[in-house]
Amino acid sequence: MTAKPIDNLESYARETARKAREAAGELATATGAQKSNWLLRSAEALRRRTPELIEANARDLEQAPAYGLTAAATDRLRLTPERIESIAQAVEEIIRLPDPVGETIDSSVRPNGLVVSRVRVPLGVVFFIYESRPNVTVDAAALCVKSGNAVILRGGKEAFHSNRALYAVLADALEEVGLPRAAVQLVETTDREAVGHFLRLAEFIDVTIPRGGKSLIERVAAEAQMPVIKHFDGVCHVYVDRSADLEMARRIVVDSKCQRPGVCNAAESLLVHQDIAAAFLPQVASALNDRGVELRACDTTRRYVPEARPATEDDFRTEYLDLILSVKTVDDLDAAIRHVNDYGSHHTDAIVTNDLAASQRFAARVDSAAVHVNASTRFNDGGEYGLGAEIGISTDKFHARGPCGLRELTSYKYIVHGSGQTKGG
Amino acid sequence: MTAKPIDNLESYARETARKAREAAGELATATGAQKSNWLLRSAEALRRRTPELIEANARDLEQAPAYGLTAAATDRLRLTPERIESIAQAVEEIIRLPDPVGETIDSSVRPNGLVVSRVRVPLGVVFFIYESRPNVTVDAAALCVKSGNAVILRGGKEAFHSNRALYAVLADALEEVGLPRAAVQLVETTDREAVGHFLRLAEFIDVTIPRGGKSLIERVAAEAQMPVIKHFDGVCHVYVDRSADLEMARRIVVDSKCQRPGVCNAAESLLVHQDIAAAFLPQVASALNDRGVELRACDTTRRYVPEARPATEDDFRTEYLDLILSVKTVDDLDAAIRHVNDYGSHHTDAIVTNDLAASQRFAARVDSAAVHVNASTRFNDGGEYGLGAEIGISTDKFHARGPCGLRELTSYKYIVHGSGQTKGG
Repeated sequence: MTAKPIDNLESYARETARKAREAAGELATATGAQKSNWLLRSAEALRRRTPELIEANARDLEQAPAYGLTAAATDRLRLTPERIESIAQAVEEIIRLPDPVGETIDSSVRPNGLVVSRVRVPLGVVFFIYESRPNVTVDAAALCVKSGNAVILRGGKEAFHSNRALYAVLADALEEVGLPRAAVQLVETTDREAVGHFLRLAEFIDVTIPRGGKSLIERVAAEAQMPVIKHFDGVCHVYVDRSADLEMARRIVVDSKCQRPGVCNAAESLLVHQDIAAAFLPQVASALNDRGVELRACDTTRRYVPEARPATEDDFRTEYLDLILSVKTVDDLDAAIRHVNDYGSHHTDAIVTNDLAASQRFAARVDSAAVHVNASTRFNDGGEYGLGAEIGISTDKFHARGPCGLRELTSYKYIVHGSGQTKGG
Repeated sequence: MTAKPIDNLESYARETARKAREAAGELATATGAQKSNWLLRSAEALRRRTPELIEANARDLEQAPAYGLTAAATDRLRLTPERIESIAQAVEEIIRLPDPVGETIDSSVRPNGLVVSRVRVPLGVVFFIYESRPNVTVDAAALCVKSGNAVILRGGKEAFHSNRALYAVLADALEEVGLPRAAVQLVETTDREAVGHFLRLAEFIDVTIPRGGKSLIERVAAEAQMPVIKHFDGVCHVYVDRSADLEMARRIVVDSKCQRPGVCNAAESLLVHQDIAAAFLPQVASALNDRGVELRACDTTRRYVPEARPATEDDFRTEYLDLILSVKTVDDLDAAIRHVNDYGSHHTDAIVTNDLAASQRFAARVDSAAVHVNASTRFNDGGEYGLGAEIGISTDKFHARGPCGLRELTSYKYIVHGSGQTKGG
């Protein structure tokens, strides 16, 4: 059994989005206690309703071969009591994050006595499209509602039954605590056309957040009539400067590449200052070789690492998401900066150096969401940065850049207090 | 003589935008002193080159009748030595605003010792489309460059020669201080098609800011491939609560409507609590009548102000930009809030009240860029809010809401300092 067919996708999308807008109006003024109560009950219910979640998940797992999922992908799809426990714990962690709504961001008193404040408010309605594991359903809903937003969830077809079961738990808990059930909605069809209808509903949806492969994000960016928080490639670099501690550099390169090669903040390219190429390249190559990493290197690099395969121009623009690393020896710091800005994807780029001026120049001139000085690229995420959970990482500059947590799901309004001031005239 | 024809608009747009992108790279790391120096020299040069500005302006004024400009519009177009002096002074005021670029927005030390900071950076390239007076050319360029952005200016055809002369002053000053001349560019054609080509260049342009009539903004929002900071209608309300000081309420209503009726933050609609309708409506009607304001009122209101013309449903959604005010008597605070959210344009809405709880409820529930408590709607602008000059007022929630000054022309990057941290594994 798959999703029930929906007769009129356009009116279904409109009705779903309209309900979300209405729920957002109520949610915007819900108290922090109400939202925490919902999160608490959701965590409890996830644990209590584990059997039905696992049953729903089993139906997805059955269909996994038909969807052509690899063994690894099927494993990522699987829910176990342990995994459900950790989903519940993630919800409980979101309870502990401060409520962003109502925070006074800044405030000033004007010469005429007006008190001008910016106060944080929810964005409104979030349309979240994802291809990821079922836990993302719960994470995203928890973050959106905690930040006062209604959310429309559109998960991948492979996880449809799991997502629907998880959604039911969250929606029931909303009713229990007196919040509108439509604060969280799941698109009840796997029909691809449905997404297109939602993307046209700018009157009801304030932002669309796609999380998945590049083709999904490109489609959404092209079709959406409302703002989109985009997350494209992570072609991340580690640049080892002339003055680097080579032992530290080796550890950072290996960690950035190998700690979890399949994710966006893993390094895909190594740049080495020519002055230390002879000393550094053989040792880092050997360490990477021990971890099974294939090197694709420029001609200069191959003088010191002859076993490396020659790199093509394309290699330096490729997000491998695998144990492959492109390597280039550069003339100097500025050449490294130029390379990162030209070939990278403005995601996460690291420098290893002991030269303060070099670190400052790299940090100022590399145009990326995150620049790491003497730290692995792998630290770019909401948890490591102290934002708590994240709904995605933005490679845009507009509205939000880098990891998007509760704060990035908000806007603000000006609230001005006077005592009868008029402009005069 | 009008603008020179350009053979290939598409390649002209691409080349202009590419040069802007290149200039933005240099500007992003320009020092505050360099940018201030440019502003200083621009102000000097505006004064020194007043004769050539007035000569260029004369050519626009000559063509004004052919463009069908009214006497008022022609006057707004006119440059005089006094007006040029005040443009120069506005530039000097922007010098005094703090440089937003490089500011550490926040910073925290993580348990593993990583220092995670968010540092303000320019957005990059701004495409600014405007139909306004020539002074906007200078204001916009000054704000964009001060915030580290390159700007492409596309002014109205009516001001083409004036804008070109002003642009020449600014660009010459860029060269004098060693900043890239392409940091400020003017679209050298009045061909409408040119705009469409620019709106497709998301690879070079980070944000488009249209400032003008609704049809311009709608066209830009529909065509732009990059983010747009939109400014739609200002259907602004003053709500006079049951507990209001009626004398204060009268002054605020008159000021909000009459101080400058043709601008977006002027009030278009008055809401009055039924409990004070009998006491307040006749006196406010009389005060408004003294100022020549035409009232269009609901039936209940007309019981107290029989001379008012009956309001249609449309009246309550109309931005008159004129000495006309729609008036409605409402049952209570919540009815006022609902009316503002349903009929308004989420721009600026004021409440006059002495009831603290009512003021809080109105401020929390009215979903507008600005909510004013006991102050005229006319105060919603960058200058009054302490932002300094503004490039526009956003009616969006995404990225920036309300007046957009230097800060709203920036993004941020994460800069993370470590001492060799790896994620491990």
